[in-house]
Amino acid sequence: MEPGPPGATRPAEPGPRLHGECGADLAASASLLSRAEAEPQRRALAVAAVLPAGGSGERMGVPTPKQFCPILERPLISYTLQALERACWIKDIVVAVTAENMEAMEGIIRRYQHKRISLVEAGVTRHRSIFNGLKALAQDQPDSKLSRPEVVIIHDAVRPFVEEDVLFQVAAAAKEHGAAGAIRPLVSTVISPSPDGCLDHSLERARHRASEMPQAFLYDVIYAAYQQCSDYDLEFGTECLQLALKYCHVKAKLVEGSPDLWKVTYKRDLYAAESIIKERISQQICIVMDTKEDEEHVGRHLEEMLKNELNHLKVTSVTLCHAGRDLQQVILEQCYSFVCVNVMTSEFEETQKLLNTLKESNLSILYPVVVISVHFLDYKSVPVDQKMENLMQIRELAKEVKKRNILLCGLLIFYPQDKQKLQESVRQGATIITTFIKERNSGFIGQLLVA
Amino acid sequence: MEPGPPGATRPAEPGPRLHGECGADLAASASLLSRAEAEPQRRALAVAAVLPAGGSGERMGVPTPKQFCPILERPLISYTLQALERACWIKDIVVAVTAENMEAMEGIIRRYQHKRISLVEAGVTRHRSIFNGLKALAQDQPDSKLSRPEVVIIHDAVRPFVEEDVLFQVAAAAKEHGAAGAIRPLVSTVISPSPDGCLDHSLERARHRASEMPQAFLYDVIYAAYQQCSDYDLEFGTECLQLALKYCHVKAKLVEGSPDLWKVTYKRDLYAAESIIKERISQQICIVMDTKEDEEHVGRHLEEMLKNELNHLKVTSVTLCHAGRDLQQVILEQCYSFVCVNVMTSEFEETQKLLNTLKESNLSILYPVVVISVHFLDYKSVPVDQKMENLMQIRELAKEVKKRNILLCGLLIFYPQDKQKLQESVRQGATIITTFIKERNSGFIGQLLVA
Repeated sequence: MEPGPPGATRPAEPGPRLHGECGADLAASASLLSRAEAEPQRRALAVAAVLPAGGSGERMGVPTPKQFCPILERPLISYTLQALERACWIKDIVVAVTAENMEAMEGIIRRYQHKRISLVEAGVTRHRSIFNGLKALAQDQPDSKLSRPEVVIIHDAVRPFVEEDVLFQVAAAAKEHGAAGAIRPLVSTVISPSPDGCLDHSLERARHRASEMPQAFLYDVIYAAYQQCSDYDLEFGTECLQLALKYCHVKAKLVEGSPDLWKVTYKRDLYAAESIIKERISQQICIVMDTKEDEEHVGRHLEEMLKNELNHLKVTSVTLCHAGRDLQQVILEQCYSFVCVNVMTSEFEETQKLLNTLKESNLSILYPVVVISVHFLDYKSVPVDQKMENLMQIRELAKEVKKRNILLCGLLIFYPQDKQKLQESVRQGATIITTFIKERNSGFIGQLLVA
Repeated sequence: MEPGPPGATRPAEPGPRLHGECGADLAASASLLSRAEAEPQRRALAVAAVLPAGGSGERMGVPTPKQFCPILERPLISYTLQALERACWIKDIVVAVTAENMEAMEGIIRRYQHKRISLVEAGVTRHRSIFNGLKALAQDQPDSKLSRPEVVIIHDAVRPFVEEDVLFQVAAAAKEHGAAGAIRPLVSTVISPSPDGCLDHSLERARHRASEMPQAFLYDVIYAAYQQCSDYDLEFGTECLQLALKYCHVKAKLVEGSPDLWKVTYKRDLYAAESIIKERISQQICIVMDTKEDEEHVGRHLEEMLKNELNHLKVTSVTLCHAGRDLQQVILEQCYSFVCVNVMTSEFEETQKLLNTLKESNLSILYPVVVISVHFLDYKSVPVDQKMENLMQIRELAKEVKKRNILLCGLLIFYPQDKQKLQESVRQGATIITTFIKERNSGFIGQLLVA
């Protein structure tokens, strides 16, 4: 992804636009779009997207249509909307859902704070759903929210990992050629059966491609194609590029896509999507320290040890005493994993401060946020059972923050120990932290784990 | 799966053949194979399999070839071998691996106790690897381990979920038609690009199929085809059915396959495979009780409560005092998750007995076995800290059994409490148990979790 102007961070992983600062991205993209025309002034291309989401997901084998299947308790379609919203230059996103799913869809838009979404009713087939979406965009009435775009992108609700690059590529190619679509190499040989159920012939794999999404069209081209489309094609057709070819004689430009464009079709795909999403939000970890004068030496040393053991992740460390400014920055960068280090205390004061900041930020709206409250404890001084009683408060605290999609557990590391044992404990602690972050499972919240 | 004779259990999920009792399965399958011929005597069909496993897995984006990528610390290819071995009627499994992977492959066969496997060197292409496998089967020398089969099955090392049914179907169809192959519906439209990178035409999705594995051939047919095969085809060809058609004029019978036949190609597929494998071995749980006379009433009641909360799983309960016979039966049925219930004791005597039985059984060779040591403890009587000290022994015990691929943790449920709180605790305990079983992650072993 090309960098924006200084000061504007463009997240590498999907993340919420907490402050709506699209300006930097919009300028960068508009300049790309008008690159071919070399105009001194930037001319923004009016782009909208249509998302057919009316399928029943029969091949999945579960009652819930796949686009509404939850991943980390959030429907799949919400991740796709988030991916499209990241392209600020897509002005309107029109989603086609069945009448019975309309209310649920409105709930999804509210709960996950999606923007620029309009809903239309799905048709009985994918083509009919897309047609309904295009019709909604045809209205150029002053009172209609939607304006007629120059280019329309068509994308599936069940392809959540689409990157902004390919959205832009197909949109730009569509402006130039009239139509464009992402393609991928075939992974299986395609064969043609004869009526008796035997092999008639097989196709040369290297000479064909799988047609994927996103696709894009000059709005006028695709809308005209749908308007002329036969009932048979509306019923049985599977390929929008084919409609543009057949009815408007427009040959689509084919754009090579990445593996990320795959479609969730079967149950295994939902598992894969969940693993990928979990992996993406587990790359980064923020270690929060409260550096008090007298403890600074000890605390810093232990923090360094812990950081070293976590060096397979991207570690940021902040302190809570700078008016939370550093922490805000980390939250903006979409970090979803926090470790709050407490030295020589079994109290939760610092952890509580962190949790309050997180709750105010709304970070956990889109993804569960993991917080691990680490306590380096001296087992020689204050009696253990008093500390244990303090630490068991974590159960109640965890139940409370779970309601805000924050997953909290505690980690106890005994200190001091002989150097080697301490190293071993810290290493074990890092393993526990990494596991809790990776699994992001609510089953172990409120536990006090011991390294 | 059709049931075998009484007394012989055929596992629904992949599992090790601990006692080599293939007899029942062999008889059942042989009768199916000869069904079409209606001979009074059973005539067994000689079937072998060839597994090309020489690929480098470039599309995966990781250095390790995909067939050797670990799932639950065990290479993917081992799961595929296990699936093929379950079909007792496949006499020989010939695997083609590169010279540099030969030693590792021998190690895999030893470590996971695979049977009926022969290794040959892979060629530079898939077709060449298969050809090498077929050559190895041509030898009908008395001193060769391999005998010339009548039918040969070809399958990919990276399709671990193949079921015995489809293996049988393609083998039987190959006997009748000369060649057969599994097919699946297309999930994407296939298009044909023109030289300028635009759409030339698209194929009607419903009139084509994806060619998958397994495939099967009369050995003589496919071996003749490979012997006549041009260098071009050996280099660039991707379809064995096409070779049989082109060189031997044999039109393969196409057999509709299930979604389970998919191929691990990309990183996301490895994630999906892991999730599916974990899910399969988490369906069943065994609750182990030691019913002493005086505690029977209390223990039974608590066990019932726990069972009720775990009723989304298939629960078997056994006692350790019947000379371990019941437990052996459960192990035979490939149960990989155990809960050892201890009432009013913080000792690990019963859990240790269970662990010893598991270690002797070799159950954990193929899959990690999860053991949760549940302790219902009275916090009013014996001082808590003494119990805690006992229970912390679980850390050492867990480290020890980890070396045997057994994942152990402890779970504490306080008793007695008022009825509602107890119900709540038991429910929470069941959640923790289910999570630990599902995740099967070594990061939390040796922890003492509290419900």
